[in-house]
Amino acid sequence: MSDLPTTPLLDTVAVPDDLRKLAPRQLRQLADELRSETISAVGHTGGHLGSGLGVVELTVAIHYVFNTPADRLVWDVGHQCYPHKILTGRRDRIRTLRQGGGLSGFTKRSESEYDPFGAAHSSTSISAALGFAIANKLSGADGKAIAVIGDGSMSAGMAYEAMNNAAAAGNRLVVILNDNDMSIAPPVGGLSAYLARMVSSSEYLGLRSAASKIAAKLSRRVHKTAAKVEEYARGMATGGTLFEELGFYYVGPIDGHNLDHLIPVLENVRDAKEGPVLVHVVTKKGKGYAPAEASADKYHGVQKFDVITGAQAKAPPGPPSYQNVFGDQLVREGERDPTIVAITAAMPSGTGVDRFAKAFPDRAFDVGIAEQHAVTFAAGLAAQGMRPFCAIYSTFLQRAYDQVVHDVAIQNLPVRFAIDRAGLVGADGATHAGSFDVTYLATLPNFVIMAAADEAELVHMTHTAACHDTGPIALRYPRGNGTGVALPAVPERLAIGKGRIVREGKKVAILSLGTRLGEALKAADALEARGLSTTVADLRFAKPLDEDLIRRLLTTHEVAVTVEEAAVGGLGAHVLTFASDAGLIDAGLTLRTMRLPDLFQDQDKPEAQYDEARLNAEHIIDTVLKALRHNSDGVLEARA
Amino acid sequence: MSDLPTTPLLDTVAVPDDLRKLAPRQLRQLADELRSETISAVGHTGGHLGSGLGVVELTVAIHYVFNTPADRLVWDVGHQCYPHKILTGRRDRIRTLRQGGGLSGFTKRSESEYDPFGAAHSSTSISAALGFAIANKLSGADGKAIAVIGDGSMSAGMAYEAMNNAAAAGNRLVVILNDNDMSIAPPVGGLSAYLARMVSSSEYLGLRSAASKIAAKLSRRVHKTAAKVEEYARGMATGGTLFEELGFYYVGPIDGHNLDHLIPVLENVRDAKEGPVLVHVVTKKGKGYAPAEASADKYHGVQKFDVITGAQAKAPPGPPSYQNVFGDQLVREGERDPTIVAITAAMPSGTGVDRFAKAFPDRAFDVGIAEQHAVTFAAGLAAQGMRPFCAIYSTFLQRAYDQVVHDVAIQNLPVRFAIDRAGLVGADGATHAGSFDVTYLATLPNFVIMAAADEAELVHMTHTAACHDTGPIALRYPRGNGTGVALPAVPERLAIGKGRIVREGKKVAILSLGTRLGEALKAADALEARGLSTTVADLRFAKPLDEDLIRRLLTTHEVAVTVEEAAVGGLGAHVLTFASDAGLIDAGLTLRTMRLPDLFQDQDKPEAQYDEARLNAEHIIDTVLKALRHNSDGVLEARA
Repeated sequence: MSDLPTTPLLDTVAVPDDLRKLAPRQLRQLADELRSETISAVGHTGGHLGSGLGVVELTVAIHYVFNTPADRLVWDVGHQCYPHKILTGRRDRIRTLRQGGGLSGFTKRSESEYDPFGAAHSSTSISAALGFAIANKLSGADGKAIAVIGDGSMSAGMAYEAMNNAAAAGNRLVVILNDNDMSIAPPVGGLSAYLARMVSSSEYLGLRSAASKIAAKLSRRVHKTAAKVEEYARGMATGGTLFEELGFYYVGPIDGHNLDHLIPVLENVRDAKEGPVLVHVVTKKGKGYAPAEASADKYHGVQKFDVITGAQAKAPPGPPSYQNVFGDQLVREGERDPTIVAITAAMPSGTGVDRFAKAFPDRAFDVGIAEQHAVTFAAGLAAQGMRPFCAIYSTFLQRAYDQVVHDVAIQNLPVRFAIDRAGLVGADGATHAGSFDVTYLATLPNFVIMAAADEAELVHMTHTAACHDTGPIALRYPRGNGTGVALPAVPERLAIGKGRIVREGKKVAILSLGTRLGEALKAADALEARGLSTTVADLRFAKPLDEDLIRRLLTTHEVAVTVEEAAVGGLGAHVLTFASDAGLIDAGLTLRTMRLPDLFQDQDKPEAQYDEARLNAEHIIDTVLKALRHNSDGVLEARA
Repeated sequence: MSDLPTTPLLDTVAVPDDLRKLAPRQLRQLADELRSETISAVGHTGGHLGSGLGVVELTVAIHYVFNTPADRLVWDVGHQCYPHKILTGRRDRIRTLRQGGGLSGFTKRSESEYDPFGAAHSSTSISAALGFAIANKLSGADGKAIAVIGDGSMSAGMAYEAMNNAAAAGNRLVVILNDNDMSIAPPVGGLSAYLARMVSSSEYLGLRSAASKIAAKLSRRVHKTAAKVEEYARGMATGGTLFEELGFYYVGPIDGHNLDHLIPVLENVRDAKEGPVLVHVVTKKGKGYAPAEASADKYHGVQKFDVITGAQAKAPPGPPSYQNVFGDQLVREGERDPTIVAITAAMPSGTGVDRFAKAFPDRAFDVGIAEQHAVTFAAGLAAQGMRPFCAIYSTFLQRAYDQVVHDVAIQNLPVRFAIDRAGLVGADGATHAGSFDVTYLATLPNFVIMAAADEAELVHMTHTAACHDTGPIALRYPRGNGTGVALPAVPERLAIGKGRIVREGKKVAILSLGTRLGEALKAADALEARGLSTTVADLRFAKPLDEDLIRRLLTTHEVAVTVEEAAVGGLGAHVLTFASDAGLIDAGLTLRTMRLPDLFQDQDKPEAQYDEARLNAEHIIDTVLKALRHNSDGVLEARA
């Protein structure tokens, strides 16, 4: 392609072994070419840009100094790994990032031996690297384990748990704190302030010049001085006590874009006799690409864009996103009721809570990447008379499951869970899919669980949740844009546990939960055209079930199908359990449950994912027809 | 009763308002009487002793200084709250602790307005208290929120997440760090070392004497000097930087058994204009009761005991506990295979991992109360060729659900989960019940899930898990002792996804998973006596299902019942889903699923809990007979 960058040096580097043959003075050029290639690739595919650009030099330095893949490099979250992928044998596929069959947008074990541990959720890297380090210690292997973790990821408790246990690894573990002072949203909390204070201190400036001097005096072969230099570097750092107290040798802060600083420090750390070492590296998100540097949040995750102008491809105009419909309705609830408060875990714009925060800055709380705290904090607010909405993606709510059980459900506290990104999530892939929430919540006593069929339903459900004071309530809705239905002028408070008939028929009943309703209606049209009169119900509630409606549908139709965008154990299982409890299957019941398949679906276009999941209209039709045929063929025979 | 202590002053205190009418000089006597009453009560009931004795003075001081219940007092874990219960209107029921219908062994909202937030799992208190504080801030209410949290609980990430967010609460939030240097097991990790270093420092000794002088000079009414004293106290503390860095004003450490130190410091803190404040209090577990002081671990949780001698009632001799059978087999696996490693989250003896740790100290890891880290650490070990067993109670594994999904299941890493305390847990109550693991794990792709029917099965399953290298595998087993079966000399490697027929019959099929097998066999005997020939299968695997066996049982018996000690969404739901997928219900299937009820069951004797859950032999019989009757009565009619 004509817009590919010229990368003569990068072209000679297929894998890190090639990189390690270069002279130190060549690394600057290599980094520049790597940066150009990264920008070009993401311009083609869209994806995470700023975080990768921020670690170009760090990526080069780590692979230059450490013996990857024998030394185990674990990138936290993994969305900064595009330059790493380019350097580790995947350059030929880098323009397939996040596409069906292409490279993952995160690290992934099945993709490369250079990805020893996959990620996508934040803050797992230190725990995993500690596992590698301890395994090596036990087996007597030489390798190091290196975790690279951003300052935002440090706000999650599990990073702290891991640091608190890291001392056992000794010098086999290296943690590189990539401090870009900008996680997805501006970072919050005490730790960020602490880092900021350190970096802005006069000692920091002194350190920078001292580090330059050290770097200038060191050649790569002067290993004997390494221990002393490392001690010296640590001694200079007046900060770092937090990490020192947790048992780390703290080194830093150092400029993460200056290879002349990075290489000797990493060499020292590599050769240190003591450990674990935490290297505090300061970087800039979007480094080296002006549009991304200027607007770090807009270039965190991008659409395809023009490399010259930075202009991102615009999504075609269409219905509003679910997250914004939720955010807008939450503002209206907040206007109506001063006790409504909103909590997000580092996803203010992703969840639409930013809109509420703008309207009611005192009543919105971004707790950082800290879902556990978010949920129990919400429980505390509810126990003191507030009406909290906890807006967390389905996949991230997994991280607060115990808090949902122990602090909310057992105490029956009215915390509202706005569960965004429920169901399949396209290019974000398996790690971000919201497949399990219906199952893991519906098994809990006291819970009310709603799923929105469209954005108008989301408005009603947001209002219903706001008004529901007798216990926990969840509303789930998907990634992406609504269906285009008109939004209600006045939201309705739905009757808890009551579904609705969307279309009345006689022979086939489709019991839908959530956004496959559109496909269910399409299927009904097609079935009707074949002479099969079809009822479509939107159950609205996975819990409590509308038992009256379900009983009526199951007993008055020849075949019934449940449809949901959730894994096994969800709506279908609960409908079957009810039917079994009620003795409805004893005399025969042609009931099928359509759900997500029992596998982790890879990234792809949403349509392709629904095809793989067999959750489109054609699959509903197919399921109904097969069930009818099975029925008419004589099931007794089939059972034999 | 004749052995009740003499408590003239305590007898005048029904609620904290009475306490607050006492003169400061009377508090020592009150604390002594409260300690005697606590020892006496736990002597009667058994329960948590050492932790309550450690906070007698702190309990008195908090209620004396703060305006409970308007000021919200949140005890972390809650197992130290017996003295608190005695002082807050529940003394008349204190000898019903942990018994059916009696007081909970933890704090519980439904029990008292003095328990604004219930607990039992650790490390939730700061998040909850922050919720109370912020709610007060928003509503303009005056009240404070006080969290009391032990040093062991501080090892969990969510405590750190909460601290990292606490600054917003200002002076409405007070965190009291109850540092007894002894959580359930000796504490581990960097934080413990940090606390130990502070307390053992020469500055600490200086502080103790300075604090005495301050206390001596202060009267309760000299409020004007409070701010200065608080500043002075903080300035003296050379430690505390960890908390200071997270945004707290650090005060301490102070002697938590000296009321003359506690009262003025807490008064200062109560009246402080700035905040949040963290008060570091040093206490001794079991304080004031020689047997408990001498052996803190043995008196953490106790049986009924003789107050004079300290002799605990011995459990009647019987079969070994499941945890010890697991621990012993794990040692044998470790002898056979040097890559076997074991991980526990602060429960070495509770999980039996202590036995493995004794045999292989280098291969056992107690990570502290840090289940999230435990699981991802195990995943890292597995990714580097180790064979890790992660031994975590069912209820606590909830805290690592995202790590189970994201780091283990998606990557299909062979981590072995030994899930202890699965099912009902008697006196420990709803917060500790292991009800949900089958559901929340069986919905995940790649997982293998076993449940042991008895201790011999547990041996086989431990071995099977040790040998299973192709993906994650879980084995669940209950609290308490085995059934008394002989343990196998040589463990068997079970075929994955294959059940076994325990008893062959013709008309009724009972499909059991786990330890209700004994009741299933009893039920089968009784049914046989009524002329109903009964098959009993032990399915062994909740996932993958033994579809061949299930299909055969369902299609060759007149009625089938699944039995499991797990909540809805587990085995029964998966059997129904399979039957529906396979078209087995189309022509009629009399299948019932017996499971835990959809409510949080309160503490009680195990037998009473199984009765409430309807999971005993009589209930199986009843379910079978009703299903048969329903069937013979003509289900078509019933459906109409």
